[in-house]
Amino acid sequence: MNFARSTIINKIQYIKNNIKTIPDYPKSGIQFRDITSLLINPEAYTASIEILVEHYQTLEINKIVAIEARGFLFGAPLALALGLGFIPVRKPDKLPGETISENYHLEYGFDQLQVHKDSINPGDKVLVIDDILATGGTIEATLKLIRRLDGQVAHAAFIIELPALGGKKRLISQGVECYSLVSFQ
Amino acid sequence: MNFARSTIINKIQYIKNNIKTIPDYPKSGIQFRDITSLLINPEAYTASIEILVEHYQTLEINKIVAIEARGFLFGAPLALALGLGFIPVRKPDKLPGETISENYHLEYGFDQLQVHKDSINPGDKVLVIDDILATGGTIEATLKLIRRLDGQVAHAAFIIELPALGGKKRLISQGVECYSLVSFQ
Repeated sequence: MNFARSTIINKIQYIKNNIKTIPDYPKSGIQFRDITSLLINPEAYTASIEILVEHYQTLEINKIVAIEARGFLFGAPLALALGLGFIPVRKPDKLPGETISENYHLEYGFDQLQVHKDSINPGDKVLVIDDILATGGTIEATLKLIRRLDGQVAHAAFIIELPALGGKKRLISQGVECYSLVSFQ
Repeated sequence: MNFARSTIINKIQYIKNNIKTIPDYPKSGIQFRDITSLLINPEAYTASIEILVEHYQTLEINKIVAIEARGFLFGAPLALALGLGFIPVRKPDKLPGETISENYHLEYGFDQLQVHKDSINPGDKVLVIDDILATGGTIEATLKLIRRLDGQVAHAAFIIELPALGGKKRLISQGVECYSLVSFQ
């Protein structure tokens, strides 16, 4: 596929076509949107990063925070393309330096995310990125981490949004502008 | 830092200077080499990807396999830069499609890695990448996965090598050529 003369709409349709749907995963009734089929197609994967670069290159952002592990796949290339520092948010006991932690709810029980304490400076303008926006629980925990370190978060980016699960509304109510490439009902 | 007229040796020294050492992590006596200090510096992070691109761009490779999660941080940008398909190798129950699995030994007990069965085609020429080469256990499990799917693995890349732990020798004995940017005794 040659994108030289194609529009952003063509690119987005191409990206959407390259996200495979796995029925009944991880359990019956769930339609799982699988980005590994996007990653294996270099044209589709490249297109997704190009669109993010175009969207964020003129905005005032100085760091990119990505959530383990699939968020790394989009946050790292975007940080490199924009020439910005990359910061991983990880599950417990994965970061070797001094960290702060936030819990977030899962369907049953809860999990925790951590960030290095020295990774955010007061006033940093941070873009948070993950592969998918569902209920917004992990992103909200990430917001709290960054704000506890006095960083500012005005933007969050996703490849996929599932609007029915309400994550965008939740983030907007916290002053975060959301951008996602494709959405699935 | 302006790399315009610098040599690859300068770049490698700059990368090494940007890898922080955390003493006694995860336990007493271990010097942990932390790549998050590299990732947060866009010049150092970019330099690491540039060196990998330069090293691999003329070799016969058509897919890049990276190991969760830190391998994603180098494998994804490299796959994008080289225009090659990217394939994640992940911990159990993370990949939604049909997978095959390999166990590998940890200090106590074992863990498992999985790959999507349809991600490798017979004859694929695969570069495997991870952040660090220590004993080589996770890479060896990854080799087995790819070879079970009839893929060929002639190359493995790392940011950091710890030669004292013998991983390189182990991989060479399996016909894999290793390249690492920096090494720590």
